[in-house]
Amino acid sequence: MPVSSLSNAKPSVPPRTAPRASPKGQQTRAAIVDAALSLASQVGLDGLTIGHLAELMHMSKSGVFAHFGSREDLQVSVVWEYHHRFRAEVFEPAIRAERGLPRLRALFDNWVHRINAELASGCLFTSGAVQFEAQDGPVRDALTASVSTWLEALSRAIEQAKVQSHLHPECDAAALSFHIHGLILSLHYQTRFLKAPDALRHATSGFDQLIQQHSAN
Amino acid sequence: MPVSSLSNAKPSVPPRTAPRASPKGQQTRAAIVDAALSLASQVGLDGLTIGHLAELMHMSKSGVFAHFGSREDLQVSVVWEYHHRFRAEVFEPAIRAERGLPRLRALFDNWVHRINAELASGCLFTSGAVQFEAQDGPVRDALTASVSTWLEALSRAIEQAKVQSHLHPECDAAALSFHIHGLILSLHYQTRFLKAPDALRHATSGFDQLIQQHSAN
Repeated sequence: MPVSSLSNAKPSVPPRTAPRASPKGQQTRAAIVDAALSLASQVGLDGLTIGHLAELMHMSKSGVFAHFGSREDLQVSVVWEYHHRFRAEVFEPAIRAERGLPRLRALFDNWVHRINAELASGCLFTSGAVQFEAQDGPVRDALTASVSTWLEALSRAIEQAKVQSHLHPECDAAALSFHIHGLILSLHYQTRFLKAPDALRHATSGFDQLIQQHSAN
Repeated sequence: MPVSSLSNAKPSVPPRTAPRASPKGQQTRAAIVDAALSLASQVGLDGLTIGHLAELMHMSKSGVFAHFGSREDLQVSVVWEYHHRFRAEVFEPAIRAERGLPRLRALFDNWVHRINAELASGCLFTSGAVQFEAQDGPVRDALTASVSTWLEALSRAIEQAKVQSHLHPECDAAALSFHIHGLILSLHYQTRFLKAPDALRHATSGFDQLIQQHSAN
């Protein structure tokens, strides 16, 4: 796998706006998705209804329906908007860090920072996993595709750190990625749900220990 | 802290049945809680309604209400029933293992086993954390009290492993407990939501690496 592949985005992510809509139509659609994302952060993706959204937007339900064929289309659009924002806040600043361990660390730090920043709202990747765990369909597919993209980015950053001789060549990237994801999930759970005061410290010291354990030196 | 304290159960857990009810009343109440737990495993604690439950039990709504003052009381009873089952499946078999590392490993293994066994239904500790994250009240309190009991049991098992010289005396029990909980959450997320085939292997190898890293030898 070429080390440049961290910048690949698989699976292909739909554009933010419908390509054939007029500029005004695109603007309205973007405003609806923005409001829908805020709403979903409070009530969950599965709590999102076109009626509630229309009320918030001071639009008719048919006005909202004109931009999204169905509630499901709207939910999928919200997932991809969340994906774009995650990319902008977590992934893109990390890709500007030096390849190898600095980039891996930036990816982790930005992810942790985002969890803390989202304290007042919610993380769609976590709530969505619970809400759509047993509901096959396009919303679940969009969520798993998006999360998988970021877990693969984490694995690729680990592979690059091996290539750069920052991590030991025998380090299992998939296993370490699983382990780091665990620290992120534990941080999320213990901060948001248990309100544990030491969670951030445990997550960062846990990451440092993992890196030390897999260090090439 | 005395090493025997792993067997303490804090916070105090309510009894399974209302103490003043007749044997017949206790039996009915237990049957309702059992059905409610099955239902909650499918639709979530927040999806539990007395109407739906009455229908499942072939009872009137007022018949169900006679055993539980409110929907919230029913939800709290379901959380404690889940707690009792978790104790029986994860905690009690572990307490029979030798104190120290064998007990810590048994606790982890039983927890992992339970996650796999619950694949067809759901884990209330995970779904409940999302559903009641922002809803203060007795249901959230019961959930956090129950989860905290098991995380404290994990920390105590680590402390005992230090006393037994199985783990290094400088090992930070709270940090290691956070880390192990991360492996459990990652296993849950990647198995149930992403259907990742290697999740179990990653969780167990992650645990082995953590133990090795903190080993006294």
